Amino acid sequence: MEIRVEDLAARIGCDVQGDGAQRVSDVRPLDEAGPEHLSFAAGTRPMKRIAASAAGAVIVPRKAAAGLDAARTWLLSDDAQAAFIAAMLLFRPATSRGVSGISSGAYVSPSARIGRETNVFPGAYVGEGAIIGDHCDIGPGAVVGAGCRLGAFVTLHPNAVLYAGVQTGDRVIVHANAVIGADGFGYRFVDGRYEKIPHTGTVVLEDDVEIGACTTVDRGMVGATRIGAGTKLDNLVMIGHNCRLGRHNAFASQVGLAGSVTTGDYVRCAGQVGIADHLHMGRGSTLGAKAGVMDDIPEGGHYIGLPAVPEKDAFRQLVTVAKLPDLIQQVKSLTKQVAELEAALECAARTKAA
Amino acid sequence: MEIRVEDLAARIGCDVQGDGAQRVSDVRPLDEAGPEHLSFAAGTRPMKRIAASAAGAVIVPRKAAAGLDAARTWLLSDDAQAAFIAAMLLFRPATSRGVSGISSGAYVSPSARIGRETNVFPGAYVGEGAIIGDHCDIGPGAVVGAGCRLGAFVTLHPNAVLYAGVQTGDRVIVHANAVIGADGFGYRFVDGRYEKIPHTGTVVLEDDVEIGACTTVDRGMVGATRIGAGTKLDNLVMIGHNCRLGRHNAFASQVGLAGSVTTGDYVRCAGQVGIADHLHMGRGSTLGAKAGVMDDIPEGGHYIGLPAVPEKDAFRQLVTVAKLPDLIQQVKSLTKQVAELEAALECAARTKAA
Amino acid sequence: MEIRVEDLAARIGCDVQGDGAQRVSDVRPLDEAGPEHLSFAAGTRPMKRIAASAAGAVIVPRKAAAGLDAARTWLLSDDAQAAFIAAMLLFRPATSRGVSGISSGAYVSPSARIGRETNVFPGAYVGEGAIIGDHCDIGPGAVVGAGCRLGAFVTLHPNAVLYAGVQTGDRVIVHANAVIGADGFGYRFVDGRYEKIPHTGTVVLEDDVEIGACTTVDRGMVGATRIGAGTKLDNLVMIGHNCRLGRHNAFASQVGLAGSVTTGDYVRCAGQVGIADHLHMGRGSTLGAKAGVMDDIPEGGHYIGLPAVPEKDAFRQLVTVAKLPDLIQQVKSLTKQVAELEAALECAARTKAA
Repeated sequence: MEIRVEDLAARIGCDVQGDGAQRVSDVRPLDEAGPEHLSFAAGTRPMKRIAASAAGAVIVPRKAAAGLDAARTWLLSDDAQAAFIAAMLLFRPATSRGVSGISSGAYVSPSARIGRETNVFPGAYVGEGAIIGDHCDIGPGAVVGAGCRLGAFVTLHPNAVLYAGVQTGDRVIVHANAVIGADGFGYRFVDGRYEKIPHTGTVVLEDDVEIGACTTVDRGMVGATRIGAGTKLDNLVMIGHNCRLGRHNAFASQVGLAGSVTTGDYVRCAGQVGIADHLHMGRGSTLGAKAGVMDDIPEGGHYIGLPAVPEKDAFRQLVTVAKLPDLIQQVKSLTKQVAELEAALECAARTKAA
Repeated sequence: MEIRVEDLAARIGCDVQGDGAQRVSDVRPLDEAGPEHLSFAAGTRPMKRIAASAAGAVIVPRKAAAGLDAARTWLLSDDAQAAFIAAMLLFRPATSRGVSGISSGAYVSPSARIGRETNVFPGAYVGEGAIIGDHCDIGPGAVVGAGCRLGAFVTLHPNAVLYAGVQTGDRVIVHANAVIGADGFGYRFVDGRYEKIPHTGTVVLEDDVEIGACTTVDRGMVGATRIGAGTKLDNLVMIGHNCRLGRHNAFASQVGLAGSVTTGDYVRCAGQVGIADHLHMGRGSTLGAKAGVMDDIPEGGHYIGLPAVPEKDAFRQLVTVAKLPDLIQQVKSLTKQVAELEAALECAARTKAA
Repeated sequence: MEIRVEDLAARIGCDVQGDGAQRVSDVRPLDEAGPEHLSFAAGTRPMKRIAASAAGAVIVPRKAAAGLDAARTWLLSDDAQAAFIAAMLLFRPATSRGVSGISSGAYVSPSARIGRETNVFPGAYVGEGAIIGDHCDIGPGAVVGAGCRLGAFVTLHPNAVLYAGVQTGDRVIVHANAVIGADGFGYRFVDGRYEKIPHTGTVVLEDDVEIGACTTVDRGMVGATRIGAGTKLDNLVMIGHNCRLGRHNAFASQVGLAGSVTTGDYVRCAGQVGIADHLHMGRGSTLGAKAGVMDDIPEGGHYIGLPAVPEKDAFRQLVTVAKLPDLIQQVKSLTKQVAELEAALECAARTKAA
């Protein structure tokens, strides 16, 4: 598709500054774009990258309009990211999923029930008594354990594994090689050996949950490990047994929660955060990258560090540690000065006594 | 199953305090239990949660008996967790594994040997010359590479992968999407490029080892990467090439061992610990969450931090760093005081001289 | 194969010190070797382990020759590791890959094109329009999404997943259960919910890239997430959407890159490093284990710590923090001394006044 910038602007709700007759035929990141491409900048920070870009037209925030090169073509938007996504979907429309039904190369237990317009791809496995809703995609090699119950519009990407009894709501996405419902890491230490604690609980993924590639969510021992509606987990995340996450949480890659952690709604963790067992993260709290949480986090708290402390305390601590070499020098001088004072005073006293 | 609390107590070896005629029909976590449920508390810490629970009966440690609400029903046990597990298995008996044999949807090399009462599920792959013992489960999509040798009662969960030549003892469990025996991360840097070092070694998982979901254990370069009997690895753990773990180790999720690390028996690592290459963790040593180990750890040592230091040193260091802002303030005052003293002394000297 | 040490030495370019008539029949690590085995030590550090080894012969660096036990048999080499690898491949020659073609147990879309002498193993899936080069191995359960393009001599190990549209160069290796091309972790927060941002970009793995087991490389939003030629990623690594890695990078296990990180050539990360989004790692820079990178890293920089700082600053900081308890003690003494001085001076003044 090729389109004039002014026509495109009209369709995605932008104002044109520059040559509206310019034509673009696809979207590209700033540094890969040529004259025939549309690109975008979410903020004004990457002005250098914008200036260096060969893009034929760039969507920018309206507030950046003043500083723009008059010789080039711009699309101004109050929400540049949204406008760009709309443009991207014009050039690259989402292909509607085909309905191929149950592949002869898949294994589906005779006692399983598969919804309407649901695909089960070659190599997939659906166990005894599993119930899968309508409009689902069970990707190549994906495994739905016995007795699982999946809602509608659920996507299991290739080789994702749901152990027996896992439940999902609607519109859940599980990415490739993620594992939902493996046994929790629970043992009793008896006579010098670890005895496995049976895990008869399960995992519940509520509506609109998205689980990243190679992420693992362990089943509860008695009850359910639960991921609240709308919560998004990135790749390689670990959610231990018995955790219960609130709604609309977002955890970046490689975050790890030990057992029985609970979170309120809207909790966010940056990458590689670790949270010790049985703690609670308050609603709306945020954890900085690599934070190690050893205590409950209050509602709305912003914590970082190991052990995690409020952000402002952590920064203060960093500043004070940075001052340490100076401080050591200062104490050395003081020690010398005090010794001299003592000597002077003693000398004065002796003089006087004499 | 519904059962009177006093009958249940008799079967799991507890004493009843309260109404033994109360009936329960399943187990639940404290905060999901209703009047028809049995729950449990391992310690006395969660007394608030116990009080808030609607559970019909709760198993608690005998030593907590004194503080209990007389209006409710309690089961007292010297080992509340064990009693609860016994109760759980009464309500939810483990289903015995069926024996379905080798699925027509699996691929089994003609030269492989499969033991008695072993299942190979649809989509599984068993390579050339592999030998699998009796009573094993090779889950859907699981891969047993050429020449692997598996003991008896081994479970490979769905999509777990054993590369060629991997060996396991008896009663080994490998969870979904774990990878055993991939090439170690070893290269020679030659003429500006990384040249792959061939890895002709293997991995040995001894008896009773359990490997978590998406955990990776790399093969040795020459010899075997070895996981000692009874050792348990949680999900997303990395064990580098040539490591040799002792017996009855327990590593929580996201722990990473670089190459050639060795451990004694009974070593424990909390989540996200990292250990540099060629180090030794002494028998019975323990590493706190997120510890970064740069040196050998002595027998029985408790280490935390980055770099890891003995726990007591780490706490002292934390305390001293926390005191830093005060210390800076104190040094500022001292500096002022010393300046005043110097001035006073000089003034005194001058007065005297005058 | 059994061979006299002097014959072996001739074939791998070593000099013999000791009994050249000694025979060896295989290679083993130092502490697993017997009299019939050849072993090696890359440096002189493990002299104790060498002394304790029962190996019949050991390859050591020539520079270590002086200190060697005259009663034993040694092979001296300027590059002991290379010599040992050559010996290992004599005893354990690499088996040439068989060519079995497309298994009837695999699914290959009619519109896909598969090169000459390429194997597609049972349970593998090749989607619509995918193009796979010559001499490739698509392992059991591996998934090649629709429209992927693979070069020649590419190996996908079992259950590795390439999402639709992923491209690879030649000689690329993707280990088991790795996931290439899953959607990036990108959402718009709208009306209290996370809205998924469509990811229409892809992933490009250039020539000679090797991807570890359970590693994930997310697809770009618009353009390609790109892994430069010759770059090696260990297991359980996360590469976020839109990252572009240079050539010949080497990242150890459990490293995580947030979105849009770029690196120059020859960048190295030790285990568990985390890098925040949109940063640049300069050519030849090195990050120590567990470093947390919050800022661009200059060319050739060696950084460690959280937040990452130049190695020498980090060590200085460690040293100063270690001095803190002493410093606190010192300030306490100073405070006391100053108080005494003040008292003495006041007393002197009073005396004088009297």
